[in-house]
Amino acid sequence: MPEFLRLVSPADALARWVKALPEGRRPAVERLDTPNALGRVLAENVIAQHPLPPFARSTVDGYAVRAEDTFGAGPSAPSYVRLVGEVPMGRLSDLQIQIGEAALVHTGGAIPDGANAVVMLEDTQIVPGGEIEVLSSLGIGKNVIRLGEDIQQDEKVLEIGQRVRPQEIGGLMALGRIQVEVFQRPRVAILSTGDEIVPAEVEPRPGQVRDVNSHTLAALVLRSGGEPIPFGILPDDPEALFQAAQRAKASSDLIIITAGSSASARDNTAEVVGRLGSPGVLVHGLSIKPGKPAILGVADGVPVIGLPGNPVSALVVAGLLVVPILRRLGGDSRPAITAAVPARLAVNVPSEAGREDYLPARLEGSPEGWIADPVFGKSNLIFTLVRADGLIRIPADTTGLPKGSRVDVVPFD
Amino acid sequence: MPEFLRLVSPADALARWVKALPEGRRPAVERLDTPNALGRVLAENVIAQHPLPPFARSTVDGYAVRAEDTFGAGPSAPSYVRLVGEVPMGRLSDLQIQIGEAALVHTGGAIPDGANAVVMLEDTQIVPGGEIEVLSSLGIGKNVIRLGEDIQQDEKVLEIGQRVRPQEIGGLMALGRIQVEVFQRPRVAILSTGDEIVPAEVEPRPGQVRDVNSHTLAALVLRSGGEPIPFGILPDDPEALFQAAQRAKASSDLIIITAGSSASARDNTAEVVGRLGSPGVLVHGLSIKPGKPAILGVADGVPVIGLPGNPVSALVVAGLLVVPILRRLGGDSRPAITAAVPARLAVNVPSEAGREDYLPARLEGSPEGWIADPVFGKSNLIFTLVRADGLIRIPADTTGLPKGSRVDVVPFD
Repeated sequence: MPEFLRLVSPADALARWVKALPEGRRPAVERLDTPNALGRVLAENVIAQHPLPPFARSTVDGYAVRAEDTFGAGPSAPSYVRLVGEVPMGRLSDLQIQIGEAALVHTGGAIPDGANAVVMLEDTQIVPGGEIEVLSSLGIGKNVIRLGEDIQQDEKVLEIGQRVRPQEIGGLMALGRIQVEVFQRPRVAILSTGDEIVPAEVEPRPGQVRDVNSHTLAALVLRSGGEPIPFGILPDDPEALFQAAQRAKASSDLIIITAGSSASARDNTAEVVGRLGSPGVLVHGLSIKPGKPAILGVADGVPVIGLPGNPVSALVVAGLLVVPILRRLGGDSRPAITAAVPARLAVNVPSEAGREDYLPARLEGSPEGWIADPVFGKSNLIFTLVRADGLIRIPADTTGLPKGSRVDVVPFD
Repeated sequence: MPEFLRLVSPADALARWVKALPEGRRPAVERLDTPNALGRVLAENVIAQHPLPPFARSTVDGYAVRAEDTFGAGPSAPSYVRLVGEVPMGRLSDLQIQIGEAALVHTGGAIPDGANAVVMLEDTQIVPGGEIEVLSSLGIGKNVIRLGEDIQQDEKVLEIGQRVRPQEIGGLMALGRIQVEVFQRPRVAILSTGDEIVPAEVEPRPGQVRDVNSHTLAALVLRSGGEPIPFGILPDDPEALFQAAQRAKASSDLIIITAGSSASARDNTAEVVGRLGSPGVLVHGLSIKPGKPAILGVADGVPVIGLPGNPVSALVVAGLLVVPILRRLGGDSRPAITAAVPARLAVNVPSEAGREDYLPARLEGSPEGWIADPVFGKSNLIFTLVRADGLIRIPADTTGLPKGSRVDVVPFD
């Protein structure tokens, strides 16, 4: 197969890949205790069984009154109300506030019947005889959270496809939802290939190197909401790779093959992806550095990616393509939001037009803000990434950036 | 104790808090299998026991040659070398490249003795008679990664205090470090107080509400590298709170008390922090909205924070103060890098000078980039945060921002 004849941008490659996935397939569902659902994706719409708050509450420490009794009041023209009791915390009060009456209420306490506003303690004075001077005029509802002001009964409060953050945990618990249905995490088979690769626990003989990509990719998958399934290290032999990929296809939602780095190893990967199922290879070669020799395909509904063997290329391409496909396979329906750190370039950076460059960079603080100092190094060198805080993206239409340019650094964390 | 007499900015509050911690105390250490160390903080300096790569390798598919044999070569003036063999993958070659000789080598293969550069296959032609035409002139070292080019033997490659990301996992495995020492995660006691609060699994009676803060804060702690330890819900009673806080102090690295929301409940918290140990309360009141009634203290070396009872205030203040103190307590020595999403404000936003405002906002895509649409709502309403993608910070010296202003949104994720 002719390589790299039509290089594709990462965004176009992702779009083609997603388009070739079967439509309407949803991940399997599991039920978890809500605190364990942190970071997972909701598989059910959550409907409020009761309003929140379930009763009208005071937002301040003060006196619950009828707002009408305070109209026109001010520091020099107070109105007067009579204290008739105190609202206990954690219970509804049986007080009935009449014209000219007030009840002491604490923050979070229930508003007693008849009252429709709360005057803050700071805006009152107790005068001899037990009456209370109100020194401000209150609108109806002042300092009150209405019943249902946060959530109405029967309101859909959370949706299928939402990711569970700390606040969703809180919202679910507030409604008494101590268990919740989430999508199972996508299973991601990771196949490492290369005759020169040995497992990390083995002492390499001369000419051998330890496996790096299986481990960096498994960590990235785990952090991105997937469940990595190691398939070990395979020789540069198309038949062995094909057999392993077939087993992976039967048990996984995504297959990652880190190809050996040589052209023949890459051809093996392309051949295997082609044999594995329909439609086969979709993209062969990305207009990106590092990461050009990447392969994308779909085999009978299972997406497959062949990543370059170089650790830096593999991790950069995985960040651009594996992370977003995992969101989709995991049922996350929200658009991805990428946050970045604005910085100034410490040095001139060359770049070829027609190709997106991703440059590892270290961020250094300065009085004028962050300085992005590129970590140059061949893409075979994993410690290039260890020394970097994030990646600078240099768009395809740029031929280089002078020192001092404003760049966005997308942090690895 | 007079409240809020001297409001402190979050940055100043954090600085005071950190300054009052005992110096030089390091977290306990545990040894983990390296893949399980993802997200943890290194407790050892890692020294390379061998160079990386451990032998000179080719970065391309081509012919290993003596660069001197190609000097001056070009498409119209090729030099000629004689193929003497092929370097097998995963082994050192016993070939000795002499003047005028070449060996086929694959990407990642070992450079044979005598060779000092690799000419890419694309820059060669095989001519009748078995000789190879070299169509380009190579510098010494061209297309070769030198032995030790990534890492030298005995080099310190990772440092105490570094957080382990996917690339650190890869770097450790490349060096055969299948186990690594990391700091134990800080234990964070979470005490919820309030006579009106019931556990989430209980059906609240009228006047009661379910506990939200314990759960949102536990999730935030977990995500920020801490180990949450729930201490349950305590009544608004200083003695009960003191007893629980004393138990927490004996077993935790950080104590979070979510105060009841009323002034008397906050006074309880301040009194308890004062009794708990020296130096006691450091900050009482932040110049921030939401979150003004926060309390910071240190009790005999254990940091304590009293958070407002309102769920939004509690989560915003925890993001500003609990997350950075957890980094420190966890042994993470790197400066925090906060990434943000640039956006335009959808509406006018008022703000008071002298106070930092944190405004929950939803991000909406548009052809011109992200639009930040503030989610207004009282800070008692947890679903305000559920509807939001992140927080807009409005600095203390700003009195409001007009619609269309450029703002940075710090995403919750």
